[in-house]
Amino acid sequence: MPRYIKKDFPSHNVRRFLEPGPIVLVSSAYKDETNIMTMGWHMVMEFSPALVGCLISSGNHSFELVRGSRQCVINIPTVDLATTVVKIGNTSGSNIDKFAEFGLTPKPGTHVRAPLIEECYANFECELADAGWVKKYNVFVFEVVKAHVATAPKYPKTIHYRGDGEFMISGAETAEYRKLFRPGML
Amino acid sequence: MPRYIKKDFPSHNVRRFLEPGPIVLVSSAYKDETNIMTMGWHMVMEFSPALVGCLISSGNHSFELVRGSRQCVINIPTVDLATTVVKIGNTSGSNIDKFAEFGLTPKPGTHVRAPLIEECYANFECELADAGWVKKYNVFVFEVVKAHVATAPKYPKTIHYRGDGEFMISGAETAEYRKLFRPGML
Repeated sequence: MPRYIKKDFPSHNVRRFLEPGPIVLVSSAYKDETNIMTMGWHMVMEFSPALVGCLISSGNHSFELVRGSRQCVINIPTVDLATTVVKIGNTSGSNIDKFAEFGLTPKPGTHVRAPLIEECYANFECELADAGWVKKYNVFVFEVVKAHVATAPKYPKTIHYRGDGEFMISGAETAEYRKLFRPGML
Repeated sequence: MPRYIKKDFPSHNVRRFLEPGPIVLVSSAYKDETNIMTMGWHMVMEFSPALVGCLISSGNHSFELVRGSRQCVINIPTVDLATTVVKIGNTSGSNIDKFAEFGLTPKPGTHVRAPLIEECYANFECELADAGWVKKYNVFVFEVVKAHVATAPKYPKTIHYRGDGEFMISGAETAEYRKLFRPGML
């Protein structure tokens, strides 16, 4: 299991970790229950407030926990956790405690009741900002109210779902084009 | 410039190329104009109909072309086009013809008037399916009505924006976990 040391990170900049499109783990707490789900369908929607659109299917056990509590934590796992990520996505919180089952550590957040997953590279504490498309599309718009990100490595080795049981693992290569950007477009 | 041979691809399966989170190029046509923009904020929303949520800022020249025509093509570039992708994102179609300027080939689509970018690995012809969040969030929900995908390689070397001028390049490594998936969860 990875052991990351984390520090506070500016929430308007969480796009640095979400925009590349990794699979994330969504943790939630409602009444006396916690849960974790695997989520691949999400997008950044605004820098500040830091909005993230997320699709949480109503068939998921997490749906009611997130809707009821109006909170969640978006956690970014790295490749070390790939097998766990798949298992989390293929079990239901209706009959197991996923933290216990998969040996993950729930860590209290500072702004929300949903627990952070300590073994993940980054944890974004979220409040529900817009439920207007929950019924129509299962789309929740969250505001990241507090972000915690590992101090190293600079570039996490994230996993990206291709469907059909296959993941792309983020490359070690980083291409940098700062000089081609107009100021304000970075 | 890459030269891909493409074939028809089932639109309910475009998530295989969008869910990993690549930077995409959105091409559009309206009245006597065409344009291309670089887009990083998008998410799959449904398999069938094949819905994709996209954030196109109202400050982009493409915004009016897409809103006016209610169509676009989502094109997936590979790393060979990285410099071009950055330049497209840092220029405006209000004063240049991006196809001509960047030596890209506009290819007629079969379902929409917006041109496909031939040099891209995949082209998804889209119709606007829901404009309900255009004003509020600049979010367009498109339905992919026709998909064209290169026959090789199986895994395109896509680029994923991290912000600040940096891209993650998709890794050559693919992790496969089919056996850990419940049927219906792939």
